Amino acid sequence: MSPAKRSAEATARLRASLIEHARQLIAREGASALTTRALAAEAGCAVGLPYKIFADRRELVTAIVDAELDQLRAACAELVQSAGTGTVGGNLTRFATAFLDSPAIALSQEIFADAALRQAVADTAENGGMGPSAFPDVLSRYLTAEKQAGRVAAHVDEHAFGYLIASTLHNLLIAGKEWPHPTRPALEQMLTATATAIAAGQ
Amino acid sequence: MSPAKRSAEATARLRASLIEHARQLIAREGASALTTRALAAEAGCAVGLPYKIFADRRELVTAIVDAELDQLRAACAELVQSAGTGTVGGNLTRFATAFLDSPAIALSQEIFADAALRQAVADTAENGGMGPSAFPDVLSRYLTAEKQAGRVAAHVDEHAFGYLIASTLHNLLIAGKEWPHPTRPALEQMLTATATAIAAGQ
Repeated sequence: MSPAKRSAEATARLRASLIEHARQLIAREGASALTTRALAAEAGCAVGLPYKIFADRRELVTAIVDAELDQLRAACAELVQSAGTGTVGGNLTRFATAFLDSPAIALSQEIFADAALRQAVADTAENGGMGPSAFPDVLSRYLTAEKQAGRVAAHVDEHAFGYLIASTLHNLLIAGKEWPHPTRPALEQMLTATATAIAAGQ
Repeated sequence: MSPAKRSAEATARLRASLIEHARQLIAREGASALTTRALAAEAGCAVGLPYKIFADRRELVTAIVDAELDQLRAACAELVQSAGTGTVGGNLTRFATAFLDSPAIALSQEIFADAALRQAVADTAENGGMGPSAFPDVLSRYLTAEKQAGRVAAHVDEHAFGYLIASTLHNLLIAGKEWPHPTRPALEQMLTATATAIAAGQ
């Protein structure tokens, strides 16, 4: 193995390690805690090191989102597979929670306020097959599967409801504090009420 | 009447005129058309005049939103009064259209991207009784009235649906072009499908 190759591998390992530490930092203390100094402290490295790996904060944030795409993809797959098991309200709530609790999501206000960053993140998500339209789509597919399982009424338009629910979650990500944000129990109650309203046999 | 009094009145008239011209300009050509130069041309005044009335663009934008609050209030009142008439889907669509077509709304991307402006607009709307939580509330009240009119099923949670529909509209205002925006006919179809799903006797 050439020294150049080792160096590239070491850089890749360091990059992955910094991203993982950044995700832990955000998960524990929120997006505002993600400073270069705090990240260096979390990772136990020199303060200047993150700057050598990521050209700027945009590159770091985009890398964090990229690393989160696997988790979001898994949450989407789990939602569709959950059709016919548990309760519809419970399945929707588990998906909503995974979506809203993602460290990538904690960065959404920052991403949204910066047009260049927003475009970079949208491109990254799109390339990973998780662009914004993936969310209405996966909710529609889940509701279609629940129709087939006999738990959503046949007359319900699953595309309309997939879009309504995805829009509500997306709005919670990007809306400021002026918008009324429900507590998690209130969100669960709302999604359960939605599931009840569209249940078969109502 | 003292000259000072006349001058204040003339300034107020000029201010109101500039706001009205700004609203017409936005309604006709979109938010990006609102430049000081274009506004002066629209109002037929000197290019420097808007700067004498509005300290900066934030002040102009906040004044436009303030002027729109009456229209939004009227749309809310009309929605609640429409319960029991026409169709539920049609009433929701008329409200959604009034909300999304408001010139104040055309400015929402700009407002959202600027934290200070966002706060100023939120305060203005809140003071006018039209803060963001007014929208889930008015939709809930409308659905309650439709329940009483026998057109929404008794088991439907109108707070959940008021929040879902308001969130979907709010998300359309603030989400970027990455988010899938329905055409107006698709929006009407979606709201009609929602109304069908929660209709009494389904």
